[in-house]
Amino acid sequence: MAENTQNLQIQSISRRELRELVRSQLLMLLERNNLEGAKALLVPVQPADIAEAIEELPEAMQAIAFRLLPKDEAIEVYENLNSAVQQALIEDFKRQDVLDIVDKMSPDDRVRLFDELPAKIVTRIQEQLSPMERQATALLLGYEADTAGRIMTPEYVSLKENITVFQALDRIRQLARFTETVYYLYVTDTARHLTGTLSLRELVTATPEQKVADIMTRDAVFVSTDTDQEEVARTIQRYDFLAMPVVDREQRLVGIVTVDDAADIMEQETTEDIYTMGGIQSGTDDYFQSSLITVARRRVLWLLVLLLTNTGTTAVIHSQEELLTQVVALSSFIPLLIGTGGNVGAQSSTVVIRSLNVETMRPGRAFWVIRREAMAGAVLGLMLGAIVILWAFVLQGNLAVAITVGLSLVAISILASVAGSALPFLFRTLGFDPALMSAPFITTAVDVLGVLIYFAIARAMLQVL
Amino acid sequence: MAENTQNLQIQSISRRELRELVRSQLLMLLERNNLEGAKALLVPVQPADIAEAIEELPEAMQAIAFRLLPKDEAIEVYENLNSAVQQALIEDFKRQDVLDIVDKMSPDDRVRLFDELPAKIVTRIQEQLSPMERQATALLLGYEADTAGRIMTPEYVSLKENITVFQALDRIRQLARFTETVYYLYVTDTARHLTGTLSLRELVTATPEQKVADIMTRDAVFVSTDTDQEEVARTIQRYDFLAMPVVDREQRLVGIVTVDDAADIMEQETTEDIYTMGGIQSGTDDYFQSSLITVARRRVLWLLVLLLTNTGTTAVIHSQEELLTQVVALSSFIPLLIGTGGNVGAQSSTVVIRSLNVETMRPGRAFWVIRREAMAGAVLGLMLGAIVILWAFVLQGNLAVAITVGLSLVAISILASVAGSALPFLFRTLGFDPALMSAPFITTAVDVLGVLIYFAIARAMLQVL
Repeated sequence: MAENTQNLQIQSISRRELRELVRSQLLMLLERNNLEGAKALLVPVQPADIAEAIEELPEAMQAIAFRLLPKDEAIEVYENLNSAVQQALIEDFKRQDVLDIVDKMSPDDRVRLFDELPAKIVTRIQEQLSPMERQATALLLGYEADTAGRIMTPEYVSLKENITVFQALDRIRQLARFTETVYYLYVTDTARHLTGTLSLRELVTATPEQKVADIMTRDAVFVSTDTDQEEVARTIQRYDFLAMPVVDREQRLVGIVTVDDAADIMEQETTEDIYTMGGIQSGTDDYFQSSLITVARRRVLWLLVLLLTNTGTTAVIHSQEELLTQVVALSSFIPLLIGTGGNVGAQSSTVVIRSLNVETMRPGRAFWVIRREAMAGAVLGLMLGAIVILWAFVLQGNLAVAITVGLSLVAISILASVAGSALPFLFRTLGFDPALMSAPFITTAVDVLGVLIYFAIARAMLQVL
Repeated sequence: MAENTQNLQIQSISRRELRELVRSQLLMLLERNNLEGAKALLVPVQPADIAEAIEELPEAMQAIAFRLLPKDEAIEVYENLNSAVQQALIEDFKRQDVLDIVDKMSPDDRVRLFDELPAKIVTRIQEQLSPMERQATALLLGYEADTAGRIMTPEYVSLKENITVFQALDRIRQLARFTETVYYLYVTDTARHLTGTLSLRELVTATPEQKVADIMTRDAVFVSTDTDQEEVARTIQRYDFLAMPVVDREQRLVGIVTVDDAADIMEQETTEDIYTMGGIQSGTDDYFQSSLITVARRRVLWLLVLLLTNTGTTAVIHSQEELLTQVVALSSFIPLLIGTGGNVGAQSSTVVIRSLNVETMRPGRAFWVIRREAMAGAVLGLMLGAIVILWAFVLQGNLAVAITVGLSLVAISILASVAGSALPFLFRTLGFDPALMSAPFITTAVDVLGVLIYFAIARAMLQVL
């Protein structure tokens, strides 16, 4: 009971606070050179949390902390470290230490590390790996980046159809240490073609004498080595699988992708989507580890494209200087009009892009959606327009200008919502990433068209009134 | 081999195309009233895909297609349907049919359905459920929305410490049909306190005579019933778990959350983040099922806030009409300046908000990040400013105006990147969602300050030159 009470107190602070605590404690113990204390502190801590704590340590201490870990745990912690720290540790250690750890990593995690390491170091490590691990890594490295082949692991359990449940369980017992998962099992024929799948659940609930062939599921869902990693992750999520088999061109089973990797891929792909929506080219580099030059390079292209579009706005206004000289009041409403238009357009494009990216919407519904967004734009434009007419009249006392501003806002809102919803569809159809047609671009495109509309309405109104 | 070749051809079209094919075939067969054909078509199809195909059918056909499914599969398909179709089917069916299906759903999926159904129908169904299922549902419904308690399932396998591996496997065999997962097992004491966890992998690799107490992992990671669902999902992802135990205030085990639910929660929470970043209030309603009024309501509040901010910009420009009358050229550059500022700010806020939301960044790094972004803003501002000075001079031939525009662009870029990076941190610190300080708000805030800076620089320049 005493133990429970203690656990309860730990739980009453959040896991994040607990991680902060481990981090600060570890630093303190290492600073005082209390290695035994640090070792004891880390015993109950999860590998992912230890990795985070090590990442936060001053560089000189990272290797010391890492050496405190028992060997089995060291591998798991190493897999969880970010690539910069993995690399620093590799350079710190005596060769054999590194090799032992890299040799025992899962092939897919190792490939991810190799992707980040300088080629020279990769070659050196590859030479020293055990033949089996070298082969596994070389296999994965042979596939293109961001495909199922690159992220799969060849460490799975395969069974033959004609063995019994008892024999299958025996095989699992032998292989359990060397495989990524034992919960999904894959049935192959003599030519290694995938013929079915089986879960450990089905296996343990069957009678020992039954044949694998009798309880396995045929019609297995699988992906090819060249399937895009995002599609693999989405498929795993869609069917609530724990792992997905990967086959080569001859439909031979070559690996599996597990659900934990799928979650990481989804997060990475979502970050890319969000970056694209924010006008940033995404890369594999970590923000905290990339140079200022890299940060700027990933942003400057879009800014230049948008700047170019914006010069169009300037040119339009410039061409109307005569009108602006007559009615100076007109210019003060330009930012409000194009700003609001940009916001309405951003809302539409956000909804459409997200729907397209998570595949809740089929491109076939494009017209329905665009019409819907146009109506929403009209409703919102009318509401905002009514407010703006009043306000503009109070500010300027000029009815013609006030009505011009109000009408323009309605027109711009409709235009913006149509552009915001239609352009992502258009981009998807053309084979580009729909996320490119997000807030920054829509906002800027609306600027040019917005001022054109505004001046056209202004000229008409000034003639009428 | 013939079978393999056939499969291979199916694989050579993507899974998405395959789903489209099932959808169109199903519709065609039902239109021709070929029920046997439709039934055969659906046999090898995954429940998630059948659900999608049914959702796309005309309403009158949905119930017909659903009745074609064997009972076990019907439950899985029903769980995968969206709530509108679930509801429509409930109303279509004779009562007993519905009850059988709803009774067999997992409690967590049933609770999700009940959240969407009218209270009247929920009460009627609740009354008819088997006592055990009613209790499970009532338990979950007692917890607040978006907490671990609400999304967990009470269908897990618990073991006692003193039983043997052999006995444990026997118990799993008996319970396998009624539990959400058998891969993670939970060890409890007589008072149902969670004392440890065990994986089926560990169990099958142990010798039959070993005691559970000897092979289980103490120091289990767990969450409380009131833990936020996003934190639960993140923790599962962080530690690569397949399920996470949930305990009540007395640390008694009450349920588990499985990895497939975690993935759905992550997707839902990410959509909310992206909507907030796009200036849309997020709700649980589906875009395709919500009315135009709901769509407009979720957007109008932010538009009004932004409009209010924008009136500030108008007021500033209005106050400078005298200057604008003197130098009409000035007004044509306003959209370009505030537009570019908005884009630079959107980039900064995108990076910061995403890092805060996926917890790759600790709030403690705020100053480092803001300084970094300010430098990036300066670098980008200088590059763009240089281009703009040239272009403005070519367009207007007025050196004072050109220099004013260039200098303003540098100043506005720095301001925008600082605002874009600092405001999300500030909001996080104040306990608000940092995503509120995204592109739409940053863009609009930069508008006001941007024109102030621009006019200040213009006045200074015009005096100097």
